[in-house]
Amino acid sequence: MSAKGSAAKEQMNFNFGSEETAVEQQQDVAQKPKTKRRGRKSKQSVAATAESMATKQRDISISEFFAKNRHLLGFDNPRKALLTAVKEAVDNALDACEEGHILPSIRVTIEQVENYDNRFVLKVTDNGPGIVKKQVPNIFARLLYGSKFHRLKMSRGQQGIGISAAGMYGLITTGEPVQVVSRTNKNKPAYHCHVQIDTSKNRPDIVYDEECDFELPTGTAVSITMEGRYLRGKQSVDEYIEQTAMANPHVSFVYNAPDGNTYEFPRKTDELPFMPVEIKPHPYGVELGMLYKMARDTKGKSLPEFLNKDFSRVSKPLSRKICKNAKLLSVKPSKITLQQAEKLHKEIGQTKIMAPPTDCIGPIGEENLIEGLERVVDADFYASCTRKPAVYRGNPFIIEAALAYGFKGETDDSDDDDKQPIMQLKRIANRVPLLYQQSAGAVFKSVVETNWRNYGLSQSKGALPRGPLVLMVHIASVWVPFTSESKEAIAHYPEIIKEIKLAVQECGRKLGTHIRKQRRIKQELKKQSYIKTYLPPIGEALQEILSLKDSEVEDLVGKLADVLEKSRKF
Amino acid sequence: MSAKGSAAKEQMNFNFGSEETAVEQQQDVAQKPKTKRRGRKSKQSVAATAESMATKQRDISISEFFAKNRHLLGFDNPRKALLTAVKEAVDNALDACEEGHILPSIRVTIEQVENYDNRFVLKVTDNGPGIVKKQVPNIFARLLYGSKFHRLKMSRGQQGIGISAAGMYGLITTGEPVQVVSRTNKNKPAYHCHVQIDTSKNRPDIVYDEECDFELPTGTAVSITMEGRYLRGKQSVDEYIEQTAMANPHVSFVYNAPDGNTYEFPRKTDELPFMPVEIKPHPYGVELGMLYKMARDTKGKSLPEFLNKDFSRVSKPLSRKICKNAKLLSVKPSKITLQQAEKLHKEIGQTKIMAPPTDCIGPIGEENLIEGLERVVDADFYASCTRKPAVYRGNPFIIEAALAYGFKGETDDSDDDDKQPIMQLKRIANRVPLLYQQSAGAVFKSVVETNWRNYGLSQSKGALPRGPLVLMVHIASVWVPFTSESKEAIAHYPEIIKEIKLAVQECGRKLGTHIRKQRRIKQELKKQSYIKTYLPPIGEALQEILSLKDSEVEDLVGKLADVLEKSRKF
Repeated sequence: MSAKGSAAKEQMNFNFGSEETAVEQQQDVAQKPKTKRRGRKSKQSVAATAESMATKQRDISISEFFAKNRHLLGFDNPRKALLTAVKEAVDNALDACEEGHILPSIRVTIEQVENYDNRFVLKVTDNGPGIVKKQVPNIFARLLYGSKFHRLKMSRGQQGIGISAAGMYGLITTGEPVQVVSRTNKNKPAYHCHVQIDTSKNRPDIVYDEECDFELPTGTAVSITMEGRYLRGKQSVDEYIEQTAMANPHVSFVYNAPDGNTYEFPRKTDELPFMPVEIKPHPYGVELGMLYKMARDTKGKSLPEFLNKDFSRVSKPLSRKICKNAKLLSVKPSKITLQQAEKLHKEIGQTKIMAPPTDCIGPIGEENLIEGLERVVDADFYASCTRKPAVYRGNPFIIEAALAYGFKGETDDSDDDDKQPIMQLKRIANRVPLLYQQSAGAVFKSVVETNWRNYGLSQSKGALPRGPLVLMVHIASVWVPFTSESKEAIAHYPEIIKEIKLAVQECGRKLGTHIRKQRRIKQELKKQSYIKTYLPPIGEALQEILSLKDSEVEDLVGKLADVLEKSRKF
Repeated sequence: MSAKGSAAKEQMNFNFGSEETAVEQQQDVAQKPKTKRRGRKSKQSVAATAESMATKQRDISISEFFAKNRHLLGFDNPRKALLTAVKEAVDNALDACEEGHILPSIRVTIEQVENYDNRFVLKVTDNGPGIVKKQVPNIFARLLYGSKFHRLKMSRGQQGIGISAAGMYGLITTGEPVQVVSRTNKNKPAYHCHVQIDTSKNRPDIVYDEECDFELPTGTAVSITMEGRYLRGKQSVDEYIEQTAMANPHVSFVYNAPDGNTYEFPRKTDELPFMPVEIKPHPYGVELGMLYKMARDTKGKSLPEFLNKDFSRVSKPLSRKICKNAKLLSVKPSKITLQQAEKLHKEIGQTKIMAPPTDCIGPIGEENLIEGLERVVDADFYASCTRKPAVYRGNPFIIEAALAYGFKGETDDSDDDDKQPIMQLKRIANRVPLLYQQSAGAVFKSVVETNWRNYGLSQSKGALPRGPLVLMVHIASVWVPFTSESKEAIAHYPEIIKEIKLAVQECGRKLGTHIRKQRRIKQELKKQSYIKTYLPPIGEALQEILSLKDSEVEDLVGKLADVLEKSRKF
């Protein structure tokens, strides 16, 4: 510690949040006698050596890491924590139902715990296929464990973090384990587990486990007791459930809010959405180092077999052609060298390979998008666009956009732009609404960088346009690249931004046509009213100048009106 | 697969980036005969059961997770990847030197690999204490391994991810391992290791290892071969090194850029900065679930011993007092129940406990902040503020702010605000400059929410103020809560935002006084020029009206000027 640092420390008093006064009093009393006795002031930072540093190096468990960095997972504060926990549980419930091809019926119940201001029990029940008992501890009390990470297929969950993180947050803040009730077969009894994560090891502990009753033939109910805060309005659980219902018309929701209200969103369609299938990685998306590792790890016995079996869109003849052109036909995948892998990688890049299959992702669809918007906004004009699939880093994705304009009978009046509301932007990823971090993601960037003046709206530089307008953007992908584990915004991949812009521009062009038409109609009405206002005095003036009879004047004015209205010139 | 989804799929053609044309051609040729043969269209999503889903559940290694989510670590694109790798290597080098109480001398060399447009070798050499050979594989080729995560002490690195992630990115993109040369003792030879991460297991492989020469008595050199892109300007390696030199005047930098230029930043001071010491967690920052777990895991034999040994600021008498008040004196920590832990937690919250010690963090200091700014901006006015330490979630932190105003001789002219530049904001965390995600973090939010009109600047709603102004904000903490693992922006903790605002406001008030003074001087000069311009004609007029002599007029005008200048009224 330098002399300067030490002096600085002595001058410091401590601000300690709400306990400030108490702390300062305590400090005044305690400091004089104690500082010498405990010798804190003389405590010095000791120079480390390579050896002393080596003794301190150790493993960090992923659960310790996220417990400390809980804001990365969406547990920044009690209100957001409650929303995040609901979101993770509902995402899992919907994924499970859809994988089992079951029309989802979801019940979300949030109850405040008696005698606690800030403690809630959250329960999410689904009618999915249920969970095999042995898997419950790992699924609910172990981070980075799941079935969705290693496959390429559109789903809401993808990381194997969310629900265990929600359980961990509950455990840290209340000490209570996660409770799971599940039944996998209508002829078998349900079971009940209490599980909790051991954060220092990222391993589950089972506290309690027994048979029980369950109201559904198959399904799962998960309960988490946690610190939280319930507030309605923007970014609330209520808003999340409403938007989820909007993006998932095939789901029936019942939501019991902590304030005693119950909200029901009955199913709007009995048709399951497009059910995606799993695909293999596409060779264009694989980098050299990854290709090298995949070759050395493959079960394929020859290089062509490796290409054919481990990738999509590489037929047997094509795989032989690639290996032949790279002069690697006789190389065993397990023995491949980095130099050989580089040759292979280069050859793949130069070979024409069909784009990846797209039955791994399903768009909402142009019609459904507009129906979804109609459910929340009563507007004069709607437009939507589902783009063709595109690819970033080998992952197929589809962008969709839809807009609603002129709600509540308002229309854009370019005379007082500043009084127009800012556009409402709704972002959806794999059918899950995103409520936080709007301005940090690719959707915001794409919309802000679109020139909305071209479409008849006013827009400040770097801002969303103004107008009575809702814009919804959906990305569907086998892997949505979020900017953080809390899945709040989409990372700035150029391919994704390009596609969002194209989708938004298409909607924008349709809107522009509509707005221009509206304006033309308005102007013509204005012109007609001019004609009606000014023609009679003109008639009188002409009568005087040309000494016409009344009937002649009437005739002339009538002709004049016809000509003016036809020519549309004033 | 629904009929609808299937039909939609058939209409889709694939956009496939730069390979678009090639792919489409291939598709045209390939699609007709192949679709039937391979039967892709009839491939259906099969309904899953609890049992079939269970077979697919598995562990995800943290390195697989980050390889797929590389943008979370700052490897979004080749240019940023190069910067991130340099940053991680330099952060580690500086931390190592300072822990060894050695004045850091750092050399950064980036060379383009021959015959490759986008491949670079990055090498960072330091004169730190070196690394014990056994630790090299874990430090450089294993995520979540390190010495900094489990302690409470200010340092640049804190997660045990960065340098291994940089090595992993190099491996994925080029297949090349990380090379490390290190020497821990001037009497011993140096050694040379090639290490690489096994991403599917998050474990290191050692490829190569032997003795070698090294130019320094102790120190480490790390080389990474990686895909990258070198571009000067904003958010470049150059900018990062310049800003790091600014925030670390005790470091000597030599930087060999890929374009052949060499930049040197000689040491500005031979004094090491404040050397922080490690502290224990403060009881106020520990949540119920965490307290419960800590009690059950403690080495302390009694509850008071647990409180005294595992926390800071809990003396032996205080620990006994807390346990006595909670009626838990006889409870063994290893046997504590959740209900008892809750009692203890409540009692801690109601007890006055001294704020945590602050020798775990060291501010840059008000003088050094201004010196740092002077190195990059030649301004008319400087102000700085180092706040007292504060606490979020039990972690002490200090906020500092400094500003420079009116550079290049310009001053604010409120008549044409729109021509003023936007404020330049520089964010530093534990002496590391942050170059990305400016608008996503707590610093931006705090600065934007500060009312700069109060200080004489113009500012649009939700935007940075305008003016010839640089503002630097530094947060020093034992644990900086970043919004992502790439450590680009600081999370929105209310306590942190409050402190940033207070620091910025203090600088703002000083600036306001300066700007108002400047304006007053300007206005007075203007008034004086009015007086000088208009008095002679007034004199003439008075002479005419009152028929005065020339000398009387002169006298009168002189008195009038005196009175006007004194009264400052016009």
